[in-house]
Amino acid sequence: MTLLSKHVDVAVTAKACHASGAALPRPLRGVIPPMVTPLRDRDTLDVEGLERLIEHILAGGVHGLFILGTTGEAPSLSYPLRRELVERTCRLVNGRVPVLAGITDTSFVESVRMAGFAAEAGATAAVVAPPYHFPASQNELAGYLESLAAEVSLPLFLYNMPSHTKLSFGVETVRRAIELPNVVGLKDSSGDMIYFQRLISLCRNRPDFTLLVGPEELLGESILLGGHGGINGGANFYPQLYVQLHEAARSRNLDRLALLQRQVMQVSARLYGVGQSASSYLKGLKCILSILGICDDFLAEPFRRFGPAERMQVERELKELMDLGIPGG
Amino acid sequence: MTLLSKHVDVAVTAKACHASGAALPRPLRGVIPPMVTPLRDRDTLDVEGLERLIEHILAGGVHGLFILGTTGEAPSLSYPLRRELVERTCRLVNGRVPVLAGITDTSFVESVRMAGFAAEAGATAAVVAPPYHFPASQNELAGYLESLAAEVSLPLFLYNMPSHTKLSFGVETVRRAIELPNVVGLKDSSGDMIYFQRLISLCRNRPDFTLLVGPEELLGESILLGGHGGINGGANFYPQLYVQLHEAARSRNLDRLALLQRQVMQVSARLYGVGQSASSYLKGLKCILSILGICDDFLAEPFRRFGPAERMQVERELKELMDLGIPGG
Amino acid sequence: MTLLSKHVDVAVTAKACHASGAALPRPLRGVIPPMVTPLRDRDTLDVEGLERLIEHILAGGVHGLFILGTTGEAPSLSYPLRRELVERTCRLVNGRVPVLAGITDTSFVESVRMAGFAAEAGATAAVVAPPYHFPASQNELAGYLESLAAEVSLPLFLYNMPSHTKLSFGVETVRRAIELPNVVGLKDSSGDMIYFQRLISLCRNRPDFTLLVGPEELLGESILLGGHGGINGGANFYPQLYVQLHEAARSRNLDRLALLQRQVMQVSARLYGVGQSASSYLKGLKCILSILGICDDFLAEPFRRFGPAERMQVERELKELMDLGIPGG
Amino acid sequence: MTLLSKHVDVAVTAKACHASGAALPRPLRGVIPPMVTPLRDRDTLDVEGLERLIEHILAGGVHGLFILGTTGEAPSLSYPLRRELVERTCRLVNGRVPVLAGITDTSFVESVRMAGFAAEAGATAAVVAPPYHFPASQNELAGYLESLAAEVSLPLFLYNMPSHTKLSFGVETVRRAIELPNVVGLKDSSGDMIYFQRLISLCRNRPDFTLLVGPEELLGESILLGGHGGINGGANFYPQLYVQLHEAARSRNLDRLALLQRQVMQVSARLYGVGQSASSYLKGLKCILSILGICDDFLAEPFRRFGPAERMQVERELKELMDLGIPGG
Repeated sequence: MTLLSKHVDVAVTAKACHASGAALPRPLRGVIPPMVTPLRDRDTLDVEGLERLIEHILAGGVHGLFILGTTGEAPSLSYPLRRELVERTCRLVNGRVPVLAGITDTSFVESVRMAGFAAEAGATAAVVAPPYHFPASQNELAGYLESLAAEVSLPLFLYNMPSHTKLSFGVETVRRAIELPNVVGLKDSSGDMIYFQRLISLCRNRPDFTLLVGPEELLGESILLGGHGGINGGANFYPQLYVQLHEAARSRNLDRLALLQRQVMQVSARLYGVGQSASSYLKGLKCILSILGICDDFLAEPFRRFGPAERMQVERELKELMDLGIPGG
Repeated sequence: MTLLSKHVDVAVTAKACHASGAALPRPLRGVIPPMVTPLRDRDTLDVEGLERLIEHILAGGVHGLFILGTTGEAPSLSYPLRRELVERTCRLVNGRVPVLAGITDTSFVESVRMAGFAAEAGATAAVVAPPYHFPASQNELAGYLESLAAEVSLPLFLYNMPSHTKLSFGVETVRRAIELPNVVGLKDSSGDMIYFQRLISLCRNRPDFTLLVGPEELLGESILLGGHGGINGGANFYPQLYVQLHEAARSRNLDRLALLQRQVMQVSARLYGVGQSASSYLKGLKCILSILGICDDFLAEPFRRFGPAERMQVERELKELMDLGIPGG
Repeated sequence: MTLLSKHVDVAVTAKACHASGAALPRPLRGVIPPMVTPLRDRDTLDVEGLERLIEHILAGGVHGLFILGTTGEAPSLSYPLRRELVERTCRLVNGRVPVLAGITDTSFVESVRMAGFAAEAGATAAVVAPPYHFPASQNELAGYLESLAAEVSLPLFLYNMPSHTKLSFGVETVRRAIELPNVVGLKDSSGDMIYFQRLISLCRNRPDFTLLVGPEELLGESILLGGHGGINGGANFYPQLYVQLHEAARSRNLDRLALLQRQVMQVSARLYGVGQSASSYLKGLKCILSILGICDDFLAEPFRRFGPAERMQVERELKELMDLGIPGG
Repeated sequence: MTLLSKHVDVAVTAKACHASGAALPRPLRGVIPPMVTPLRDRDTLDVEGLERLIEHILAGGVHGLFILGTTGEAPSLSYPLRRELVERTCRLVNGRVPVLAGITDTSFVESVRMAGFAAEAGATAAVVAPPYHFPASQNELAGYLESLAAEVSLPLFLYNMPSHTKLSFGVETVRRAIELPNVVGLKDSSGDMIYFQRLISLCRNRPDFTLLVGPEELLGESILLGGHGGINGGANFYPQLYVQLHEAARSRNLDRLALLQRQVMQVSARLYGVGQSASSYLKGLKCILSILGICDDFLAEPFRRFGPAERMQVERELKELMDLGIPGG
């Protein structure tokens, strides 16, 4: 009973915030961090942490905020909590940057419902990955996107994330999807730059269509190739590093880009491999934010926060990075 | 708004049905069909079809009913519809056989909530597969099950379904889970009989622990090896075939078993490969039920029902099976 | 230069042994151990070990011998050594049981050449898995088998081993292959009993076609279903255990089968998991044979024999099995 | 018998060519085409085609030649034919560019033997991918490379090709391998640019260590990031396109790079997808070379050349590329 009611008042207030949403640039250029979801426990937001995190990220000069993605642990969160997060984030951001809200779900109806809620709460756009349970064909995925786009009022970003969803939006599926009027961009987290190059080719005559990459290690090269920016996890804690790298790449300052790329590779090598598990990236991110005093490092099931040994290692790596002058332009 | 409200009255009545649940035999032997979810459209149950389907299945002499599994398209359904299905099914079955309700979700909190609802509605047990998004380790999966079992009042079946969840309950994880007092059984849909043999070994001293297989092609041999039965899709339309096969295997009538196994292989070869896609099993099942006049063949996104060509092929195959005297003991 | 010449005299003598080959029963029933290749170093046979191993295996009452399979490390051996092994084995077996020789290679020409050598050396049949480098389609695999069967004089067994070759002989490919006059059987090491059941269905009208399984854990059930026996690694050291299990299954003595199956599961659980790597089965096998004083435990690259810790664990497990009366009928 | 003897005289002459090998630049920069192996049938070189192909490629200004790679169908060729190819190629190239010869094999001994032969024939370096049958661990792969480097006199390039070998050289394995004195470079065909960035980081203090990419779509960006060039299949028919792209990237002419990259993407999209199978790249390459009158398009088993329909499509695409001015700088 408690589960069902405690998030309700937040939900009800969603509609009132509508006016505050930021406009969506076409294309959307820059760094749009995939925000972690600060949690106190498995069904309670860390509300103060959320506020600090948003201010920390926005202070870094980012160009948008993506909530309820993989980094945001969206699939692990209850629906009421997801709605509370959307509502609070939109209110806290208050139109300073576009807010992109993940609506990915295995259930079409729940995705549509979440998109409707996000629109009412003032989100700028919705982001959708393939439904991640059944082995849908590319033709079925294209049909899925056509049906979904028709039911969703927000601009829609596709989210290619095969490591977690096991399904990819194939190039031909994207070709069909970009014909839909409210499909405005794509985030590619596959790490497959041949695929990304094909998307660049595909969108040559669509200068308004946004192409973003997920892995921060690929942010620089993707911009050199014609991409518009990235949705990069490290921007939760070092937003300015990725913002500077984006600027260096966009202005084709290759020497500066190489310098910043080395910093990005150091961050990635040192901070995301602690604990050696498939989830060490996510656990590392929350651990860093906790060490920096920004928010709690609780992770929803099936994950658990790092233990003391891993936390000490993250602290040590953070200190060594600082000694190396990272981040720093 | 309609989405949010139309299932509500059903939900409210759930509690009243509690008394009608069937007792759970330990172990649970026999055939427990994984019921398809009859749909009129993506968020509307085919209520008459549901009633016909339940009566059709129970008339075949099955030993339980499993709803909201993969065959039931659970991940594709909205939460209100899932709740409506649980409630209506429990009421229609009315204690004649145990009802097992799937509670699998990527969100722990939603799984617990669904289990609570199922308990109130009169379900006999809950069934849980690994959370199917994040790459959890076996140690995390074992911890997940421990936390879940503590929050769920119903007896719990594990559901191993790596083709769709991408995560397996490893043998060591099962070893830890069977120590939990309300973990009472496991359904294995991996098709990996070495794994199943290991589970048989593992449970040698736990005669009350239920081991069931998913693929109907493996029902006979699994019982010969010490398994207790199956959760077999074909029992949606030919329940008596699988019930007879179960009996032949249990009574070690190997000649009769071989005869029935041939019929099962014919059903599988002819009916589940139409259309040649990864989803042809699910589409075939619903198409057969529609041809038999039992329920609608609508499938929730990302799938769509068979077109006329595939439907005609299914009709033809059904007729040829009938001409071969299948099903028939 | 040494590499090229040291095996030559053996090769030259191959032809003389032709007369000694055993006839091939159709179907070939029973246990046909996939023999390990005893090595002194990476390119030298352990000749005395080979003789002891063959006599140890044959004394267990097996029904054939399979050399140059995965368990025989064939892909890791030089061609001259492979030829020496074929020649010596045929001479040592001397027609007491059929000798099946692996000819699998990524190169068609080398497979044909090895088959020709095996025929001259007196082997009874050749065994071929899919060429394990390029992603051939099923249609290409079927064409491959047709071309190969035309070039090979020996009876041919197909070898399905997807874990190592990454390619499977699909059911339709097998359907085409069994039409070829010298394709006489198939060994399935996939562990997928649905696939095996389909093969059983496929061969219902071909009582002369041999169906064997690889994994020893599945030997019993495969025979109950209509299979003819197994190519089981454990028969390198406990040949009589698998021979007895084969007899129990063939005579449908289900109680005795259950008893022996428990022993097989104990052997598998205790002896093949030491060291926890993907190669622990192969390393374990050779370690056991070394402990039993039968042959050297040297493994060709990329593998290495167990170190002292793993060897001690294998010794301990062997002793515990003996204390449990395993193997023993 | 014919198989065994017909390549012999070529083999015997290998040693005499030793003096003609080109020196190996450290690092090796530029485009080093992975040459297809022109065949008349499954065990006969297209000798005239080979000569025309080599001259065609060298006329394009390439910086080396890689034979017996995946594109060269090495695993599908007999050993005598592989040796004949090495010998003829070294003689025809005659020191004009470095010749890199693939020595990958599942058998360590055969790899060493091929490396010895290549050295005698005048090859400049040897190239080795992981042994592609057994599931070796990273530690075993590192030990494998250490043993191999000790036995091989030629400079050694590692070849990362997980799509075909199923095993990758992990970053830590490469870290160990680059300590070996004759390990001089790595070709990465994984398409995983995060991995490639990690290698760039790893080799920051090893300016003599060569890093090359396989996929031609990634040639430009890899050079911008610090890579040295590519081993790109398209350079078999349009060598100058990839040479020009290499130059544009190396001189950081980003506008010209973008223009050439578009041409590369057109080539890739139009020519490598004909026939839609996993092998269409390889079949397409040989078909193009046949259309251009350079060499025969016979493919060794398990593949077959394109049929008339696919060949006509390739002709059409080639013509359309020409009409678009591709290739052209």
